[in-house]
Amino acid sequence: MIRVIGIDPGLRNTGWGVIDVAGSRISHVANGICCSEGDELATRLLSLHGQLTRVMATYRPAAAAVEQTFVNKDGAGTLKLGQARGIAMLVPAQAGLVVGEYAPNKVKKTVVGVGHADKGQIAHMVRMQLPGVEIAGPDAADALAIAICHAHHGAASTLATAIAKASA
Amino acid sequence: MIRVIGIDPGLRNTGWGVIDVAGSRISHVANGICCSEGDELATRLLSLHGQLTRVMATYRPAAAAVEQTFVNKDGAGTLKLGQARGIAMLVPAQAGLVVGEYAPNKVKKTVVGVGHADKGQIAHMVRMQLPGVEIAGPDAADALAIAICHAHHGAASTLATAIAKASA
Repeated sequence: MIRVIGIDPGLRNTGWGVIDVAGSRISHVANGICCSEGDELATRLLSLHGQLTRVMATYRPAAAAVEQTFVNKDGAGTLKLGQARGIAMLVPAQAGLVVGEYAPNKVKKTVVGVGHADKGQIAHMVRMQLPGVEIAGPDAADALAIAICHAHHGAASTLATAIAKASA
Repeated sequence: MIRVIGIDPGLRNTGWGVIDVAGSRISHVANGICCSEGDELATRLLSLHGQLTRVMATYRPAAAAVEQTFVNKDGAGTLKLGQARGIAMLVPAQAGLVVGEYAPNKVKKTVVGVGHADKGQIAHMVRMQLPGVEIAGPDAADALAIAICHAHHGAASTLATAIAKASA
């Protein structure tokens, strides 16, 4: 069994979702949203780092994946997201994990079957694949979808890489 | 006396510079460049975080400032810089410091006297203001310029804020 965390980074709200993967079977462990506190950028990033670190310590996933940020024409928005994404990549790396990255349309294609699904469809398919799950919000649904995507595409191989590195 | 660190973030090379400020007098303490190691983004960010954390632990500055990233039309470049900048903001915040932010033209105007100076002019003026300094490279020169800018504009007031917060 492999425990996988998916993270959907955002400066205000960073969604996270943890699932267990055993062969082709997946089950829900937990999900939530880290809401950054503070008025200043550095304070917000510190708050996100602290909350995500506590999530990692609580659920101890063995594999992690973060959504590849959509680069749009809004430079200021891209920069904000980039800063939050830096924290989202750092925290699992600090726990010694290899961090997978998936583009949003890859996540959607894996979870919904098409590359251009809306948030409602994603949440619906996450609920179908994780029966009984209570989802903390759209960012948490996206994070669970990223975890499911990683379970299908990369979790096993990145875990194998991590084990190979650890025993090298 | 206040010890100030300036940081010029970049995903490959993050420059840093530490100065001591006593009233209107400034003196050089140290400067250098954190070169991120690793092929993967998460590994690079982890490497930057570790190196910057060691710089903070070695020199123990009481005030910090980070350059405000220039948002350009290259979304992918902005995103990369944003991720490195997230780490550059996080590390001093983890040390309990308020982190100042200055736009590049504000730094140039303070250090060189005009808002549109090139890297050579910045390094020249940094050397004039910190006699005898040996600069590790252009990113370190920019970082020292940011520290000097913070000494002029904000270090004392952010330090006062930090003290007020700590004693509140």
